[in-house]
Amino acid sequence: MSDIPTAPPSGFRDFLPDASSLRGRAIETISKVYRSYGFSAIATPAVEDLAVLTGKGGGENEKLIFKILKRGEKLDLSQGPKELADMGLRFDLTLPLARFYAKNRGVLPTPFKAFAIGPVWRAERAQKGRYREFIQCDVDILGSESALCEIEVLSAALSAFQALGLDLPAVVLNDRRILYALLAEWKVPDEKRQGLCIILDKIDKVETSILKQDLIALLGHANDHVEQFLLAGQIDEELLLKVAPEPMQRLKAIQKALRDLFPSPVEIKPNLVRGFDYYTGPVFELRRPGVSGSLGGGGRYDGLTEKFGTPHTPACGVSIGFERLMLVLEESGAKKTSGPDAVMTIFSEELRPQSLRIAHDLRSNGLSVDVYPGEAKLKSQFKYADSRQARFALVLGPEEASLRKIKAKELATGAESLLEFKELVTALQHAQTLAQAS
Amino acid sequence: MSDIPTAPPSGFRDFLPDASSLRGRAIETISKVYRSYGFSAIATPAVEDLAVLTGKGGGENEKLIFKILKRGEKLDLSQGPKELADMGLRFDLTLPLARFYAKNRGVLPTPFKAFAIGPVWRAERAQKGRYREFIQCDVDILGSESALCEIEVLSAALSAFQALGLDLPAVVLNDRRILYALLAEWKVPDEKRQGLCIILDKIDKVETSILKQDLIALLGHANDHVEQFLLAGQIDEELLLKVAPEPMQRLKAIQKALRDLFPSPVEIKPNLVRGFDYYTGPVFELRRPGVSGSLGGGGRYDGLTEKFGTPHTPACGVSIGFERLMLVLEESGAKKTSGPDAVMTIFSEELRPQSLRIAHDLRSNGLSVDVYPGEAKLKSQFKYADSRQARFALVLGPEEASLRKIKAKELATGAESLLEFKELVTALQHAQTLAQAS
Repeated sequence: MSDIPTAPPSGFRDFLPDASSLRGRAIETISKVYRSYGFSAIATPAVEDLAVLTGKGGGENEKLIFKILKRGEKLDLSQGPKELADMGLRFDLTLPLARFYAKNRGVLPTPFKAFAIGPVWRAERAQKGRYREFIQCDVDILGSESALCEIEVLSAALSAFQALGLDLPAVVLNDRRILYALLAEWKVPDEKRQGLCIILDKIDKVETSILKQDLIALLGHANDHVEQFLLAGQIDEELLLKVAPEPMQRLKAIQKALRDLFPSPVEIKPNLVRGFDYYTGPVFELRRPGVSGSLGGGGRYDGLTEKFGTPHTPACGVSIGFERLMLVLEESGAKKTSGPDAVMTIFSEELRPQSLRIAHDLRSNGLSVDVYPGEAKLKSQFKYADSRQARFALVLGPEEASLRKIKAKELATGAESLLEFKELVTALQHAQTLAQAS
Repeated sequence: MSDIPTAPPSGFRDFLPDASSLRGRAIETISKVYRSYGFSAIATPAVEDLAVLTGKGGGENEKLIFKILKRGEKLDLSQGPKELADMGLRFDLTLPLARFYAKNRGVLPTPFKAFAIGPVWRAERAQKGRYREFIQCDVDILGSESALCEIEVLSAALSAFQALGLDLPAVVLNDRRILYALLAEWKVPDEKRQGLCIILDKIDKVETSILKQDLIALLGHANDHVEQFLLAGQIDEELLLKVAPEPMQRLKAIQKALRDLFPSPVEIKPNLVRGFDYYTGPVFELRRPGVSGSLGGGGRYDGLTEKFGTPHTPACGVSIGFERLMLVLEESGAKKTSGPDAVMTIFSEELRPQSLRIAHDLRSNGLSVDVYPGEAKLKSQFKYADSRQARFALVLGPEEASLRKIKAKELATGAESLLEFKELVTALQHAQTLAQAS
């Protein structure tokens, strides 16, 4: 045995064929939906200058950056730990998008509708269900203040769930300005806001009794309004409309439009805060009843691209949390089979060229055909075909060759048929269609 | 202006919509071809333990690893520069695959046919056409010694070029054992082999006169055989069969099988070396006449997984160099348009819900429809539709609404038609089909 690790580093994952195939198909489906909404694909690198990633409102995530060690002469230990790195792995797709937009806005349409799907990295404490590399699926609109942006990005996300055959998540809406107006109404001093947001952000994660303790510690005394509000998250809409009329009207317009188009619950909950400080208006989360944490979220971040030197640019986006989505997909019993339509066996060295030609021509007909890559007895090759979850094993022996036919063995039933090439294509295509429909 | 950089770090790239859309489609096409050959998708993380990446035959690339700075208490400057990192970004997909196989072989089929498509990172000197983050598209077969493996992985790569509508590249084959046997025949001492391989690896990159100088410096004197061989790369096949019969017969079998299936040139060139030391048998490269460097390459690496503790496991794979492939695709005039089928304009706030409903229903019919995300005059919205390279702009004003119709303006011609929803679906689908066929 070797003492080289064979597991990925802690918090990182390998994906076996079934999982990898399901992930690939989900990404293709989400991309297709995002494109159908008129969003254009863009891509940015995994690695960014640290100056891009820090000080832009990334909140706690800034502390979780994986930094890239400087190289060669640039690496100077005498300068202290801060000078060991000037680049890092991105921790979200929003900051890179803001940088990208600042760089390229001259050649982009206005407004600009972009989507990006790719991995991000955070040095989270390794624990179950929390990973250090995970995929985000973002849609964003830059250059428009209209509530249509919120409606479109949320619609695109909801449609992605539909296209994946999943129940629609609930949409929870808020606007930090509503929260702040409420706190002002309840005489909570401005300087306590930030601390309160941090407490509110933990609602799903820690027990209510601990939240109450945190609250008293923050405010110095009990505040019934804050506490009730914190527990219930539901405030009389008239009060909200009174304290923050403009933000509330926008949220209600978004709520109405989404309810018109999708059968999902859409709620305004003034206790929703999102961990990023770059949000300036509406924020939202996609939630699944019974699942803690969110399936996605986003909001409006009108000031962000200005930090990269642009004129004022309103912006809004949503991100689907791909890893939680995959958990839901797996629970929903999504088919994971990654097997080919058929395995072409190799009867003998002499018949190998003809067998390869048959596989080649089947593939040209849109079929997935695995050639058994080795020399082995037919029995072992059939066993391999089983382990590949193939539907058929194909045999071209001397008899079949003399008849110019191929033997097709259906692995589920063991039934064998002797078919001409054209008949074989039809049979495999038919089986493929049946399997896709089931 | 801000002094935050808006360009990606040196050697890294952003991809604008046209390029990004072309890349996405190419990846989907290659995945589809790999699947049609019965390869199963797998995925490994971007980040690996340094112990996995180093000392495994990665050659010069080991020096180009981007290392991840340790965090918190683990970061101890007093331990010297070697102790600053224990993880790094992968520089190829082969070492991660070998680790993956060692970990998971108990639950994988034998032989195991895998494909992986993803970015790798190398701290190359930044220069034109050389990037620090680039995509590789690998297919591999582990667990079989048969030459069918070489035939299948190369066939899959060639089919990917065909599926992308590109001319087939030439295939160049060699086996280091043939090279070594030749050198023995020519009385070159064994200890000069490694140095000679480094010189041969530069054939495409530096001038012949420099290669000759390097040769004399290495061997201590001129060697006509080596020099002629180095220049021409073509040696009489009979000599090759005499000095290395078994490796040559395998290469000839691979050559014949590929020539049977593909109209591409397939040559045996004993001066081909590949930069990785983990190759143990046949090596190959995909080349395009007139393009320096390769479009892909690979070989047999029978010993590699043993370094991760497995029993002896024969293995063989090919990697398509995605970045060069994209250059060829762009030169070939591949269509880059990333525009939607239509832009739905918003005539007024009152008609917004109906306009959103129309866009929603068109999308449900498989069409790509961008809703103009803002409030603007129709003229500006048409301009936006033009900039999006949409085929149609759609208008629902009070007149259209009262007639229960939608106005469709074909942007190329300016022609307008008033259509019922069903007629609109048909018209857009028809235009989509025409565009895809053109």
